[in-house]
Amino acid sequence: MREEPGGSLILYHGWSSSASRKVRFALAEKQLAYTSHPINVRKNEHHAPAYRKINPNGLVPALVHNGVQLIESTFIGEYLDEAFPDRPIRPADPVERHAMRLWCRDVDEKYLPAVLKHNWQLTIHPIAREWSDAELDEKLANIPNPQRRQFWYRMARDPFTRDELEEATAVMRGLIRQMEETLSVSDRPWLTGETFSLADISVTPYVKRIEELDPAQLDPSTNPRTADWWQRLTARPGFQAAHIGAYSEQADPEYPGPRVTDNPVDT
Amino acid sequence: MREEPGGSLILYHGWSSSASRKVRFALAEKQLAYTSHPINVRKNEHHAPAYRKINPNGLVPALVHNGVQLIESTFIGEYLDEAFPDRPIRPADPVERHAMRLWCRDVDEKYLPAVLKHNWQLTIHPIAREWSDAELDEKLANIPNPQRRQFWYRMARDPFTRDELEEATAVMRGLIRQMEETLSVSDRPWLTGETFSLADISVTPYVKRIEELDPAQLDPSTNPRTADWWQRLTARPGFQAAHIGAYSEQADPEYPGPRVTDNPVDT
Repeated sequence: MREEPGGSLILYHGWSSSASRKVRFALAEKQLAYTSHPINVRKNEHHAPAYRKINPNGLVPALVHNGVQLIESTFIGEYLDEAFPDRPIRPADPVERHAMRLWCRDVDEKYLPAVLKHNWQLTIHPIAREWSDAELDEKLANIPNPQRRQFWYRMARDPFTRDELEEATAVMRGLIRQMEETLSVSDRPWLTGETFSLADISVTPYVKRIEELDPAQLDPSTNPRTADWWQRLTARPGFQAAHIGAYSEQADPEYPGPRVTDNPVDT
Repeated sequence: MREEPGGSLILYHGWSSSASRKVRFALAEKQLAYTSHPINVRKNEHHAPAYRKINPNGLVPALVHNGVQLIESTFIGEYLDEAFPDRPIRPADPVERHAMRLWCRDVDEKYLPAVLKHNWQLTIHPIAREWSDAELDEKLANIPNPQRRQFWYRMARDPFTRDELEEATAVMRGLIRQMEETLSVSDRPWLTGETFSLADISVTPYVKRIEELDPAQLDPSTNPRTADWWQRLTARPGFQAAHIGAYSEQADPEYPGPRVTDNPVDT
């Protein structure tokens, strides 16, 4: 075993990045103080060699705990719960924990790619379209993952069509449908049961984005269980301390971030 | 909490399926007795409505524990270690456990798609090419996942080219390179450190397949650390009880399976 839990936590994150929002929420729920290093993804700071020493994949977020680099938001969530057992964010029951991991995986594999289309169209396209071919090549040469690099080229020169964006919204409506069904069948307050968990944390940035793109989905008359869940979730002090605000505002490169960045929950 | 660990374990699995091999290995390492239900994927048994009641995704493996259905081999591995804490297959240290999850994810996202091309070319294509268009539509209508269905159509009518297969082999060589580097840098016996873990289990079916496709990769003169790791891994009683044999033999629809199927390790 390594040294005792505790010590320094440094979070490298984007204010509007969905994966970063998940980790800020997890840190806030566990009431862990951390040093905040915002990375401006619209200025390509996550592709810079300095940041790639922290996350070689050039993605946000990354967490550094006592000098150890940790990547991938879902695994950072599990890590935090294992390194800091107080205020658990995973159910104790193995069956519920298995269900939690299926939720986290659905978010990463299905809902993240859908929301990225909307987010990048809004934020990356207007910037990248202004770059010359030479500038584009130069800026994107730093992106380690070939699929990701291709996605940036696409965003620069060939933005998503209205049909593609509508298809992405339909996928995100599928998340609300999946949540409504789960909450109805189980008749329990959180996605995996009685315990608020990483499953609830994982879907949060996506539900927040649906609230902006298609607010009727969160109307009690349409999806009563999910609407109730959302009201209870957004009332949590942890949610409020996680700074999961309006996407368009937080994606602004001039967004200053909250004034206090190193201690999400004081209570 | 649910009832105490123990009770009945039923494994639905394919003898040659990489994900099934991982779960058989995990069960054997933990010395858990289970009832074996082989599913013949070349006879489309995993797409049949009866099996889709157990795994709605129509994929092997699935584990049923005291009536609870568990899917996704990586998450089944974590589940087994949480429901049955004896003989752990995850490191206790949170940093090593985080590294374990990155290995498991690389296997699922990068190496599984590469090995599937070789495996399906050998097993699915010769069967599916004989079906008429009407038979193909009828058989594939049961596949729930559209990408998976598309993959079956492709295998039936448009098998992978030599270049595509060589590219897949190159990806698999990348696994050996990644292992050799990890084992060299850490100078420890297993992928995540001193503890044999789900990381080692996850890569096993893929290393076994490389042993068939490109045996020079496991030569001590080429990759000494990985060759040594493979020798120690295959000597484990758990590996031997997991029935991870020659792919081509176990993919044969007439493969009878081992005679004793319900108790992998007697010691």
